[in-house]
Amino acid sequence: MRIAIDAMGGDLGPAAVIGGVAAFLRDDTDTEIAMVGREEILGPELRRHGLGSHPRVSVRPASQVIEMDEKLSAIRQKQDASVLRTVELVRDGQADAAVLVGNTAAAVAASQLRLRLVEGAHRAGIAVPLPSKSGNTVVIDMGANTSPKIEHYVDYAIMASIYVEEVLGKPRPRVGLINVGEESGKGDELLREAYSRLEQAPINFIGNVEGGDIYRGTCDVAVCDGLVGNAILKSSEAAAELMVSFLKEELSRSLRRRLGALLCKGAFRDLWRRCDYAEFGGAPLLGVNGVVIKGHGRSDARAVRNAIRVARDAAARGVTRKIRERLASLVPARGGPAEAQGVSGHG
Amino acid sequence: MRIAIDAMGGDLGPAAVIGGVAAFLRDDTDTEIAMVGREEILGPELRRHGLGSHPRVSVRPASQVIEMDEKLSAIRQKQDASVLRTVELVRDGQADAAVLVGNTAAAVAASQLRLRLVEGAHRAGIAVPLPSKSGNTVVIDMGANTSPKIEHYVDYAIMASIYVEEVLGKPRPRVGLINVGEESGKGDELLREAYSRLEQAPINFIGNVEGGDIYRGTCDVAVCDGLVGNAILKSSEAAAELMVSFLKEELSRSLRRRLGALLCKGAFRDLWRRCDYAEFGGAPLLGVNGVVIKGHGRSDARAVRNAIRVARDAAARGVTRKIRERLASLVPARGGPAEAQGVSGHG
Repeated sequence: MRIAIDAMGGDLGPAAVIGGVAAFLRDDTDTEIAMVGREEILGPELRRHGLGSHPRVSVRPASQVIEMDEKLSAIRQKQDASVLRTVELVRDGQADAAVLVGNTAAAVAASQLRLRLVEGAHRAGIAVPLPSKSGNTVVIDMGANTSPKIEHYVDYAIMASIYVEEVLGKPRPRVGLINVGEESGKGDELLREAYSRLEQAPINFIGNVEGGDIYRGTCDVAVCDGLVGNAILKSSEAAAELMVSFLKEELSRSLRRRLGALLCKGAFRDLWRRCDYAEFGGAPLLGVNGVVIKGHGRSDARAVRNAIRVARDAAARGVTRKIRERLASLVPARGGPAEAQGVSGHG
Repeated sequence: MRIAIDAMGGDLGPAAVIGGVAAFLRDDTDTEIAMVGREEILGPELRRHGLGSHPRVSVRPASQVIEMDEKLSAIRQKQDASVLRTVELVRDGQADAAVLVGNTAAAVAASQLRLRLVEGAHRAGIAVPLPSKSGNTVVIDMGANTSPKIEHYVDYAIMASIYVEEVLGKPRPRVGLINVGEESGKGDELLREAYSRLEQAPINFIGNVEGGDIYRGTCDVAVCDGLVGNAILKSSEAAAELMVSFLKEELSRSLRRRLGALLCKGAFRDLWRRCDYAEFGGAPLLGVNGVVIKGHGRSDARAVRNAIRVARDAAARGVTRKIRERLASLVPARGGPAEAQGVSGHG
């Protein structure tokens, strides 16, 4: 198995990415890693992490970087950008999966441009597994597509169902449509139409759900537009951080509480691990011809390590091929072959 | 000050509402409460709470109830519904504010039908104060309007700014537009247009924000459509509940942790109080001619008590009049008088 990584992306820079690679390689015995980026930066950093002459680590040059705050149009000017070079390795059969940590819009655009959409898919979507009472719920889309069309909702539901079945190992995942209430007939026209199309799709559709159902685990896949998905992810992360900061304040208010906190230290650490986004490590971009795992922009070494694991597992289980087969089998039922679509520059 | 309450609504029924009234009256010495609903149910329940002959509590009859899971069309069939009768007391000058605990869509529709929109407002929106590092952030809209138009975003920003200034006491509240990233130019056409209109509006607009900014307190008002607002509220509530349930599990894993938890008990209680939606108690429906406070559907007695307090304070500070004056002063600048609009049946 060969994984290509954009080593230049992310808020924390190459050091975090390389730290993640080092951590990954400690447990993995046969995956090869291609680090894509500026050799003059990556070389010294790899040596610092003891990976300077690791037999399964190579550096692939890319002279440009798309920064976190750059606009999508940068991708047209920077043809030697590390994010493009990384997905090109997948396109050219030199890697089995790509891990992209950095600018989300650039990651989505680079993947759609270089890998193209799977036949039958109308748009790629980012699927993020979040913790729930029953394990995980995968939310799709998480910011690739702020104005989905009806057919995108259907694609997302089918693709995420396959991902949950194959990679997370849950048969017949329950799919919900995020809406303002559970009753059918809720929401605007687009959501009502999406509801009726999802009812006919070859998935285990359980109807409308609300944001709370994600964490309660009453569905395994939650389908929404990218604005809603991004709002859910970012707000619940911040809500959890706020709770932790309130908890720290409350625990420091008295000697008794400080003593209790000392005894509970292990419990707090385990709690945080169960809630931490970094533990889930990576979100697949579903719908492109190849495995692409998007890491969180703020990914630390642990998150990068986990993203590489997710990439390896998704590639090993043939997720892209299964999505292609499932969508292809639906083409007649879905009203003719899907039109080829370019990148639409969202998110 | 006179407050009218729909005593029949809410998942927890009249007992929770009356419990909240009883708690409110213990601290308040001059507010009068009109309970609206079925006399045969409210009478015995009031007596059970020792309010059977309270000089400041009265019952106003309404023979029908719109249940939590009923469709909006029920409001046309049930002209004697408690939610309609409650807002009618405000319309007729018999109450200074209404507290509605129950079906959100029915509460919004009843208020828009009976109170009409404030002159200059294009649509009512539900504003919900959420806890943040800097106190509170008010999110608008929280489910009244799933397909806002440009002018609704502007109305929401102005109305919520006035609410935050007048009732929460923060001068020049910072207003953010919820988007998929902070840079201008993010999101679809509607969001980009809303951004440029908010830049010109007489508010302290700080640009795009993400869901996380709500809890980090980097803005005081966050404007979004009702689907996004509902998703944020419901998902972060459930994320907090999940954390609490994980924490309980972790704390019970060993004797050491159980002992620590015992010492920390007060800290956990205080933490929960700081995060609990019920503490904020009520969300104003802004844009209608009268103070309407929407309680959470699952409101317990404490949430009801707090919603009544919010209603009293909003009425005392003349929020509706101030919104009317501010919007009226903008009419020429906003391109002619606003058109009268009816209820559009969202949410």
